[in-house]
Amino acid sequence: MNRIITIGREFGSGGRELGMKLAEKLQVAYYDKEIITEIAKKTSLAEQYVQQVVERRPSQWFPLTVGHSFFLNVDPLQEQNLSIYQEQCRIVKEMAEKSDCVLVGRCADFILQDKKPFRIFVYADLEERLARCRKRLSPQEQLSDRDLKQRILDIDRNRAAYYRFYTGQVWGDKACYDLCINTGCRPMDKLVSAIEEILS
Amino acid sequence: MNRIITIGREFGSGGRELGMKLAEKLQVAYYDKEIITEIAKKTSLAEQYVQQVVERRPSQWFPLTVGHSFFLNVDPLQEQNLSIYQEQCRIVKEMAEKSDCVLVGRCADFILQDKKPFRIFVYADLEERLARCRKRLSPQEQLSDRDLKQRILDIDRNRAAYYRFYTGQVWGDKACYDLCINTGCRPMDKLVSAIEEILS
Repeated sequence: MNRIITIGREFGSGGRELGMKLAEKLQVAYYDKEIITEIAKKTSLAEQYVQQVVERRPSQWFPLTVGHSFFLNVDPLQEQNLSIYQEQCRIVKEMAEKSDCVLVGRCADFILQDKKPFRIFVYADLEERLARCRKRLSPQEQLSDRDLKQRILDIDRNRAAYYRFYTGQVWGDKACYDLCINTGCRPMDKLVSAIEEILS
Repeated sequence: MNRIITIGREFGSGGRELGMKLAEKLQVAYYDKEIITEIAKKTSLAEQYVQQVVERRPSQWFPLTVGHSFFLNVDPLQEQNLSIYQEQCRIVKEMAEKSDCVLVGRCADFILQDKKPFRIFVYADLEERLARCRKRLSPQEQLSDRDLKQRILDIDRNRAAYYRFYTGQVWGDKACYDLCINTGCRPMDKLVSAIEEILS
């Protein structure tokens, strides 16, 4: 069975950087935005649209009544969102079948639970995340600290709601992971080496 | 400044074993039960009694009214428990001053926050903890799985209440730690080597 590493991450905590460095060090495939690209290809939807759907809170497009036997009118938008998730599951499983890999986000820890992936969750203090996001902003984006903080918290709330909706688990709850790393504690390369050591 | 590592741990998750092995590998002092022994010496109370106090839920001996200005009668038992905690703070700080060390439990992560310790929290699935505790039981102790599980959960509830009472933080909440490790994920020696790598 392939060696699979999944990474859940708070927005701005450096999960993507950690995942890329880890994949490079282990010389395995790395999937992050690639999953969105693949879903877009398979569903013939625009990549940007797919990105929006998988980052939106499910409650915004999924009434609580669904699943009840008296619910007869199926909203086409709901159907589309569900089929995007199903496609996501298929693609994540396909990627995990192909070779050893690092998968970032997309409920991969849950989707691949039968394959016993090594499940990492990456987090950091809000101030550290704020500083990291500030560096990534384009010169056109003029955001106050308050607005940027709000954006970070909003994205995390959406991720938590999406994860809870599809997995029934609590996003970021350490019980769902093998290792939770505060990226503010040490340089990223040290953390990558430590994970490599655990997995060796 | 000395290198300080603090370990919070769910009961039966192997926090003590991890702490001892880590201290051995790093060749630094290790403090766990030693803290209780020192408190007992300093307060002239029996070690077993001190152990009971620091493992009891504060709410059992500390009415909510304390701290309110209209609360005038000071219960001697409350005073004693508070002075045990104060002694604990003094001893933990003394140990951290002496040399590099690993400290298990006793709110050390909070007490030593000015010294920026490396804060680890150790946890595991309940089934794994049950199996670990079962191995440690003496032949005289005949406990059903249900009773043993209950004992584990009770001890954790007490630890959480004690930690919350004195630190105002949530015990086991990953935000309070640098690294949270599920000891069920890999052999203990691998985890110890990984922590050594992070700290190197």
